[in-house]
Amino acid sequence: MTDLQERVRALRLVAFDFDGVFTDNAIYVAEDGMEIVRCSRGDGFGLRRLERLGIEMIVLSTEENLVVGARCRKLKIPCVQGLQDKLEKLEQIISEKGIGFEQTAFVGNDINDLPCLRAVGLPIIVADAHPDVVVAAFWQTSRGGGNGAVREICDEIANILEQG
Amino acid sequence: MTDLQERVRALRLVAFDFDGVFTDNAIYVAEDGMEIVRCSRGDGFGLRRLERLGIEMIVLSTEENLVVGARCRKLKIPCVQGLQDKLEKLEQIISEKGIGFEQTAFVGNDINDLPCLRAVGLPIIVADAHPDVVVAAFWQTSRGGGNGAVREICDEIANILEQG
Amino acid sequence: MTDLQERVRALRLVAFDFDGVFTDNAIYVAEDGMEIVRCSRGDGFGLRRLERLGIEMIVLSTEENLVVGARCRKLKIPCVQGLQDKLEKLEQIISEKGIGFEQTAFVGNDINDLPCLRAVGLPIIVADAHPDVVVAAFWQTSRGGGNGAVREICDEIANILEQG
Amino acid sequence: MTDLQERVRALRLVAFDFDGVFTDNAIYVAEDGMEIVRCSRGDGFGLRRLERLGIEMIVLSTEENLVVGARCRKLKIPCVQGLQDKLEKLEQIISEKGIGFEQTAFVGNDINDLPCLRAVGLPIIVADAHPDVVVAAFWQTSRGGGNGAVREICDEIANILEQG
Repeated sequence: MTDLQERVRALRLVAFDFDGVFTDNAIYVAEDGMEIVRCSRGDGFGLRRLERLGIEMIVLSTEENLVVGARCRKLKIPCVQGLQDKLEKLEQIISEKGIGFEQTAFVGNDINDLPCLRAVGLPIIVADAHPDVVVAAFWQTSRGGGNGAVREICDEIANILEQG
Repeated sequence: MTDLQERVRALRLVAFDFDGVFTDNAIYVAEDGMEIVRCSRGDGFGLRRLERLGIEMIVLSTEENLVVGARCRKLKIPCVQGLQDKLEKLEQIISEKGIGFEQTAFVGNDINDLPCLRAVGLPIIVADAHPDVVVAAFWQTSRGGGNGAVREICDEIANILEQG
Repeated sequence: MTDLQERVRALRLVAFDFDGVFTDNAIYVAEDGMEIVRCSRGDGFGLRRLERLGIEMIVLSTEENLVVGARCRKLKIPCVQGLQDKLEKLEQIISEKGIGFEQTAFVGNDINDLPCLRAVGLPIIVADAHPDVVVAAFWQTSRGGGNGAVREICDEIANILEQG
Repeated sequence: MTDLQERVRALRLVAFDFDGVFTDNAIYVAEDGMEIVRCSRGDGFGLRRLERLGIEMIVLSTEENLVVGARCRKLKIPCVQGLQDKLEKLEQIISEKGIGFEQTAFVGNDINDLPCLRAVGLPIIVADAHPDVVVAAFWQTSRGGGNGAVREICDEIANILEQG
């Protein structure tokens, strides 16, 4: 059993950053200040696979933005927004669920994800993450954020879990 | 006569998935939850060529979304949305038209297209389809969804049919 | 003097297709059917250079769409939309201006541009034009439509004309 | 100490062009003429770093457009729009601040930025700047406008300043 397989088999929760993970880290701004983000239609298939395998999922976002809520409702995963300290929130969540950091994966792309990446058992970053977070990752996806990274993570985890 | 030419000459109907075929599989989400998709202006020229050659076309979509209807109206092709089981619908359609699966092509990009791809005489996937559907395809386009794949398919089919 | 320089020095009018030339040939479709196109902010600098050199410009579009008018107003160039036959319109325009086809350039990207491309003295296509129009072009830009093609054309023409 | 380090250590103000620097120089146009631009979510982290180091920042834009104001408010940096002569404005600003051009950096991407680029101590252009401005730049970023260029500039400047 490889080290990745071991970490994946311990998983109970996958926590995701939103911008740069579910999106390509671009933000479209209209004249009235309305923001639009670009996501990938294929992510939902991956999230449903993890769900069927009993893995819990949550989105933790620094941004306080209606698009995060809109996308997460569509994807049917819970989200918490406007977090200045994601790690504090993550700690509270896993404590409520009665699990530990070693049973948790975190997916991020930028420096505000570093505390969570350093705390969890399986720290994951996307292909186009900021160079300053690479050192904190156990696994870097081959697909970029908003361009299949979430799907790739879900598929890989599910493939390992389904091998039994 | 090649195998592709044979399959193309039998065609009476081309059924298309929407997301990832007419689009690049991205979904733009605005703050109010409104969704926007990115299509290719050149697709219409291809669809009109097939139409003039007597090929029928239809879009079958799992998503229930106003953008699918809006784009199909513009492209003047019929569409059926909100399908949990595309194959059941496709079966009903070809039965009503009095044709068989071997006279049908299906164009898809993801795992929910697998049943239709496996049933039809000419299963086609786009260049950027999910790896798990490659095995079910007879033909994979060189252009990606929303970036010329539909046009490429229509042009190639029309070129074969026009050779007579 | 090269053949391109000769053709450029004869120019009095540059006629442009819109979709695929001022845009990347993508069309963004919202749930209410509203269309959005993606243009390049740098095109205006090029058009103003040609204007100062006394070259007239016009946009001829098959599409009947408010975005064409909106973009052309911003760029301050006249446009004619909803044209089933662009060549007929182009013929009328150059006749009114008292110039000939050999004093006209046309910039296109797809098969509906072929009649105009074949008629004018300087037929130009963008880097990502449809393969079926390549044969009709004297010059293919190195930049794609909506990604600097218009600017490249204007700069190149202006550079030749300014050499005197 | 390299020449870049010397120029960076003198800095008191970084002035930015908007289109093509904070955006990828694309402009999305809707049917009602509304414009949308594409920015990078990661820019804010970079601007905050410079701010903490006491560097002042301002956006100077030729365009008079609501999106510029909307994005700058979100990024919490001041902006001046509708400038026919950016250099005149920049001169006024540095004079009011009691600093000199050698303590100023300017980030641009196109020919209307040339006067400012030629005046300042540290002229910077983005990876995808127009070829005609390359000659005026001391530093060209490796990331394109709207795709990490602003972040790269802020990170590099901050790294040098933090080395003390």
